Amino acid sequence: MNRIKVMVNGIPGNMAVSVAQHILDDNRFDLVPSALTGPEIVETEFSLGTTVVRLIPQEKREVQIATIMEKEGKFISVDYTHPSAVNENAAFFCRHGLPFVMGTTGGDRNLLEETVRASSIPAVIAPNMAKQIVGFQAMMAYAANTFPNLFQGYSLEIKESHQKGKADTSGTAKAMASYFNQLGIPFSEKDIIKERRPETQKTEWGIPEKYLQGHGWHTYRLKSPDETVSFEFTHNVNGREIYAKGTLDAVMFLDKKVAEGTEGSVFTMIDVLKDI
Amino acid sequence: MNRIKVMVNGIPGNMAVSVAQHILDDNRFDLVPSALTGPEIVETEFSLGTTVVRLIPQEKREVQIATIMEKEGKFISVDYTHPSAVNENAAFFCRHGLPFVMGTTGGDRNLLEETVRASSIPAVIAPNMAKQIVGFQAMMAYAANTFPNLFQGYSLEIKESHQKGKADTSGTAKAMASYFNQLGIPFSEKDIIKERRPETQKTEWGIPEKYLQGHGWHTYRLKSPDETVSFEFTHNVNGREIYAKGTLDAVMFLDKKVAEGTEGSVFTMIDVLKDI
Repeated sequence: MNRIKVMVNGIPGNMAVSVAQHILDDNRFDLVPSALTGPEIVETEFSLGTTVVRLIPQEKREVQIATIMEKEGKFISVDYTHPSAVNENAAFFCRHGLPFVMGTTGGDRNLLEETVRASSIPAVIAPNMAKQIVGFQAMMAYAANTFPNLFQGYSLEIKESHQKGKADTSGTAKAMASYFNQLGIPFSEKDIIKERRPETQKTEWGIPEKYLQGHGWHTYRLKSPDETVSFEFTHNVNGREIYAKGTLDAVMFLDKKVAEGTEGSVFTMIDVLKDI
Repeated sequence: MNRIKVMVNGIPGNMAVSVAQHILDDNRFDLVPSALTGPEIVETEFSLGTTVVRLIPQEKREVQIATIMEKEGKFISVDYTHPSAVNENAAFFCRHGLPFVMGTTGGDRNLLEETVRASSIPAVIAPNMAKQIVGFQAMMAYAANTFPNLFQGYSLEIKESHQKGKADTSGTAKAMASYFNQLGIPFSEKDIIKERRPETQKTEWGIPEKYLQGHGWHTYRLKSPDETVSFEFTHNVNGREIYAKGTLDAVMFLDKKVAEGTEGSVFTMIDVLKDI
């Protein structure tokens, strides 16, 4: 089997570095030793073991991408950059006919999809790359659509814990809250209990110290009106491993779509999941 | 709204008594004061508060049902009897044109469905009347069919606790194990951890003392190969309230189907759920 070449953009960001390392460690892939990077980055290269990745600032990318495409031939781009760069980067990939996996959240999501649809390339757009969590969300969406009001009368508690730096409420917890609304439970986003204090995370939640700076723990508790029935769903992620693995699956999937000659199509993580 | 008349068969069994009590307490329903009962029952009547229910032994039922039908007009039958009576009772209901909700497990389930299909009445056949648990099972079945191998490489632990008298492994836990198999996890029914010791249930599981003789607690734990990701699903039922409520929903649903003129149709709890 030919190795799939992958350009991972967003280095030296944590998520991009993690994916690039996985690409290097996995013999299904080859890493393109160049990466688009943001205006705030002063480094011009980044070392991953013995591999040196050249960092391409915005003003140089039009010229350098031509050289890279000439040298590397076909490759898939992965984007873990910054919300402010989402639309611009997508336009760049589309303009150059570069199929991409967009792991960056934010930006104008409708415009993002339109850009791909008007282009000659397929893309996977996946604000959450954790396959199993996306699968669980799909289960919840299915229940919400198929059995509205299934949990009518039940009470709900949602708790989530993330690293201290994360200011906003977990997007997954918010999505879940809306499924539970459809299932008959009045519940507002602001009822979600957010934990950001490392000490409490360690002592009360039992989150391992080494993951205090990178984790996403979620618990949903349902109780029947008379409290004789309870349900509890928990999904806890430590570190970034699950997202990096999901990214590789998305790359594999997209490579197949490119080989099939798919053009101008937007795929989601659900499509990747169905193809596992 | 006219009240729906309901005959609850299987009194003085616990589940039948619980449903009959709910029927009496709910102004959507009227209880038919007669109930089919098993050969081992020596009582001829059973009191629920001020209501006296006549217990009809097998040898008298053909005669007495004619009298009841004449007196009561249309009603819906509920069956919480004994696995050995399932097919015989279904044949009896069908012969007399009595729409029924079969809550009794066991018997020949294919024959049961065939009997209904060949008849002039609709029936709800529901080995588990707990709507929310059936809904959760449906979510799992959806995931298993839509995303096979989603949890490939994950490890699984299934634990269940039921009252001391229950000899076999939980049917729900076994069904869940098969969904997890489809989701990519090798797991055998005999790997299910069964708890039947009241002392352990009380001290280790925290099951309230008053429910030691009637509960169904289930926990499913998933861990990724590198243990950075975990999922946990729990559903705990104390007592019989959830089953009684689900039975009333099934009766409401069946009454609607009868009014629509449905004949020879088998409905499941999933149909009831979709109609909530």
